[in-house]
Amino acid sequence: MKLYSYYRSSAAYRVRIALNLKQIEHTIEPVNLLKKEHKSADYLTKHPQGLVPCLETDDGQYLAQSGAILSYLDTLYPSSILLPPDPFQAAKIQSFVDMIACDIHPICNLRILNYLTEVLKVDPQQKLAWYNHWIVVGFEALESMLETTKYSFGDQITLADVYLIPQVYNALRFEVDMTSFPNIMHTYKNCNQVDAFIKAAPENQIDTI
Amino acid sequence: MKLYSYYRSSAAYRVRIALNLKQIEHTIEPVNLLKKEHKSADYLTKHPQGLVPCLETDDGQYLAQSGAILSYLDTLYPSSILLPPDPFQAAKIQSFVDMIACDIHPICNLRILNYLTEVLKVDPQQKLAWYNHWIVVGFEALESMLETTKYSFGDQITLADVYLIPQVYNALRFEVDMTSFPNIMHTYKNCNQVDAFIKAAPENQIDTI
Repeated sequence: MKLYSYYRSSAAYRVRIALNLKQIEHTIEPVNLLKKEHKSADYLTKHPQGLVPCLETDDGQYLAQSGAILSYLDTLYPSSILLPPDPFQAAKIQSFVDMIACDIHPICNLRILNYLTEVLKVDPQQKLAWYNHWIVVGFEALESMLETTKYSFGDQITLADVYLIPQVYNALRFEVDMTSFPNIMHTYKNCNQVDAFIKAAPENQIDTI
Repeated sequence: MKLYSYYRSSAAYRVRIALNLKQIEHTIEPVNLLKKEHKSADYLTKHPQGLVPCLETDDGQYLAQSGAILSYLDTLYPSSILLPPDPFQAAKIQSFVDMIACDIHPICNLRILNYLTEVLKVDPQQKLAWYNHWIVVGFEALESMLETTKYSFGDQITLADVYLIPQVYNALRFEVDMTSFPNIMHTYKNCNQVDAFIKAAPENQIDTI
């Protein structure tokens, strides 16, 4: 498999973690967002939105969207499934995941921040306030769902960790004050002891600048 | 089951469609967003983000986030599953769904539009331009993934339709020009012939104003 990735993309970071956790043989193909390689005609034939990540399967098919990719990998590799067998417990974790996937990450990512500055002409302070607002509102809900277990939901790594760690990484990069989120930070530190997470981190990519 | 819903919420609309398609006995409990009922202390114990929808199961457990609810319902009622059995085809549909769930809907919903006007003081025209921009960018990708079949992906209703129809309804309410999206509109019209979709529509709810 081949993953089209950008080192700082949170969504690509999720898939990198899962590929490592599942020990799936793969190569990383960097797509430089700053050079707008994701908007090239060639890349758009692979991913109709022109975003990262994109998975290329062994038989040359392309799959966009990290959520769809992760769910596909869970189906292909059920022995390392990232959701527990109990339907309601799995749904609770999916709910936690969706809060990040739908209500935090897409509102704070690069294309939105660019629109704010380039089209709406907001100043750097307003941009940072926007970012901080949606992160804090989202993290308050996530924090309330966590208990002090090793990982987000118990002693096993789940899909929740795969989503949480990249989002926290991103928040720290934007210098969000994390003192109100002790359970989130507890999980963040524990996950970052695990090889699959370390290897997937933005600072350890072939396209890290 | 009980669904906490608001007639105009696209995310609640998705779950209403699925409950009807699956013929699951349920009641609707309206949550008036304009009266800020979703931010009441009581509702926040059910849904930590204070958003709609929220599902209350028969044994009194609560589940937030439409994606998690829909996936849970598919697990409980596999005979009416909304994804095809082939893993890659299912992932393709999930990819289409995630484009709406992550990259269109959360950027254009009420809380974001309110922040734009109340905090960033954008004028009504800028707000409409924001909405239009993200809808059009997203719909271009969706349109490119559709062919002229009865529903989004073939002759069977899938999760793609459950997400697409509420988003198109919302776009039409904001008077987005849909002439560039013939495949989307073809699907929209066909789905709106189906009872489960008609019954779930915002104009047919007990809290419709």
